[in-house]
Amino acid sequence: MSANDITYGVVSREELLSQDGLTLLSRMAKGDLPAPPIAELMGIRITEVERGRCVFTGLPEFRHYNPSSQVHGGFALAILDSALGCAIHTTLAAGETYTTLEIKVNMVRGMTEQTGEVRAEGNVLHRGRTTATSDGKLTDADGRLLAHAVTTCMIFPPAG
Amino acid sequence: MSANDITYGVVSREELLSQDGLTLLSRMAKGDLPAPPIAELMGIRITEVERGRCVFTGLPEFRHYNPSSQVHGGFALAILDSALGCAIHTTLAAGETYTTLEIKVNMVRGMTEQTGEVRAEGNVLHRGRTTATSDGKLTDADGRLLAHAVTTCMIFPPAG
Amino acid sequence: MSANDITYGVVSREELLSQDGLTLLSRMAKGDLPAPPIAELMGIRITEVERGRCVFTGLPEFRHYNPSSQVHGGFALAILDSALGCAIHTTLAAGETYTTLEIKVNMVRGMTEQTGEVRAEGNVLHRGRTTATSDGKLTDADGRLLAHAVTTCMIFPPAG
Amino acid sequence: MSANDITYGVVSREELLSQDGLTLLSRMAKGDLPAPPIAELMGIRITEVERGRCVFTGLPEFRHYNPSSQVHGGFALAILDSALGCAIHTTLAAGETYTTLEIKVNMVRGMTEQTGEVRAEGNVLHRGRTTATSDGKLTDADGRLLAHAVTTCMIFPPAG
Repeated sequence: MSANDITYGVVSREELLSQDGLTLLSRMAKGDLPAPPIAELMGIRITEVERGRCVFTGLPEFRHYNPSSQVHGGFALAILDSALGCAIHTTLAAGETYTTLEIKVNMVRGMTEQTGEVRAEGNVLHRGRTTATSDGKLTDADGRLLAHAVTTCMIFPPAG
Repeated sequence: MSANDITYGVVSREELLSQDGLTLLSRMAKGDLPAPPIAELMGIRITEVERGRCVFTGLPEFRHYNPSSQVHGGFALAILDSALGCAIHTTLAAGETYTTLEIKVNMVRGMTEQTGEVRAEGNVLHRGRTTATSDGKLTDADGRLLAHAVTTCMIFPPAG
Repeated sequence: MSANDITYGVVSREELLSQDGLTLLSRMAKGDLPAPPIAELMGIRITEVERGRCVFTGLPEFRHYNPSSQVHGGFALAILDSALGCAIHTTLAAGETYTTLEIKVNMVRGMTEQTGEVRAEGNVLHRGRTTATSDGKLTDADGRLLAHAVTTCMIFPPAG
Repeated sequence: MSANDITYGVVSREELLSQDGLTLLSRMAKGDLPAPPIAELMGIRITEVERGRCVFTGLPEFRHYNPSSQVHGGFALAILDSALGCAIHTTLAAGETYTTLEIKVNMVRGMTEQTGEVRAEGNVLHRGRTTATSDGKLTDADGRLLAHAVTTCMIFPPAG
């Protein structure tokens, strides 16, 4: 699937709750489900999904710049939040939902338009009954570390 | 200044380094200097600046949505990163620069298009010679806490 | 109550669950209940308790030293973890329990035997039904900031 | 070396600065240099050292208990702070020093006297000229994850 083929939108609550997280995110990565609006806004997309792991790629551009001609921290934060949250999302059974309680990101190297495509990979560290944690890294095409992050999420059982 | 009057762009290195941080950010808040591209992308703007304190406002919209029709964490992360970083930026002398080493954000309440304008305020906690920290809150128009954050920055002396 | 009058020990599960957190911690601060073993080990004690706020004091000593004759980070971490966790504990109804999901501490100034008594104050930022957050500061007798912290806790309803 | 053979104390400034971090910590692990007072207080010891990696072991005991007969968070925080900080310490050249700017720890499972010996391993994620980060895990003898952490340190060049 090329980036041109992606459609953007939200997913109905029924669609979200009727399938497990791994199925849902795999369909999103394949383009069978729309990518969310934030993915279009930030220029990021989900590219790899397996149980406990998720990868997003993104392209730092001028639109992400802060006043000093560097990519604003918000870009690294958004792509890492996506990768780490979705790594946990892959562990959800049908009907379960989750929310991010907190995320902590270390910024290691700055980015510019010259950085090229970057890759955020999230991996589950702990999956309990009601909470889960994951961590991950943002790297450039040469594998250089740009940022790393860790997150804590809360898991909700199927309603009613 | 209304949002319509804002121009977007980056600031030259000479402009950035020739004035102290409080002057630079105050001019940006007044519209005397362009707002950065990320501000247009995320729909956020700097509205209050004083020494050690900075406020951004922003409007959560459909373009910020994740698949489940909630505002993606990246919105809260970006506006808080701006407010907390700029609070530290206000303490810089002319020629000094800074970079964010890390930021940690707690998400307390979700946001939707119905949330309305939100406000991120950052305040400096510690300003040393080479490092600084700040914390802050994201609140809605009723003062309800949506998220809170803390950041660690590094300060660089004037070059040469 | 002087430090000499403190008795150390744990509290029975019945004692813990039969009263609200504010009552329990207030009795501990008054010496009506034993202080925990960790308080004796680290040289810290609970001194002020009100709903949503808790203060511990402690004395940095040689026994807390790392190899380079500075107080090890573990001292600041332990006293802040106590103050921030107990601030949340004060909000528990009888039968409710809590656990710390994560804590993040910034170290601002080092401590030695010459620092004198320090004070860790924790304040609740958010108290939801199932999660709560608090932050706080560690200061010396002159009010200088030594460290600051933020924590995320999970709240469990009364069993049964 | 058995735990009985360990001597405790601090190391002179000359000793600290005259050798690189890997040499210093390796000598400490072998017992050629005293372990710090905090190690005796908390019941932890350095057991493995290589460039960019450091392991501490420790035994949770009654003296570490909080009021509810669980090991207080301060134990996990102290042993992880040691392992993550020393992982960075192994990268220091003779004369270089470092300080911990911040540490963030997720608590995954509680500990009691029945937990047995635990192991904290720290690994360097990023080593720059002036800052470094590391992360690590605390596990029990069965490899179960008890806590995980990430830290940011600042590196100082040799004085003079």
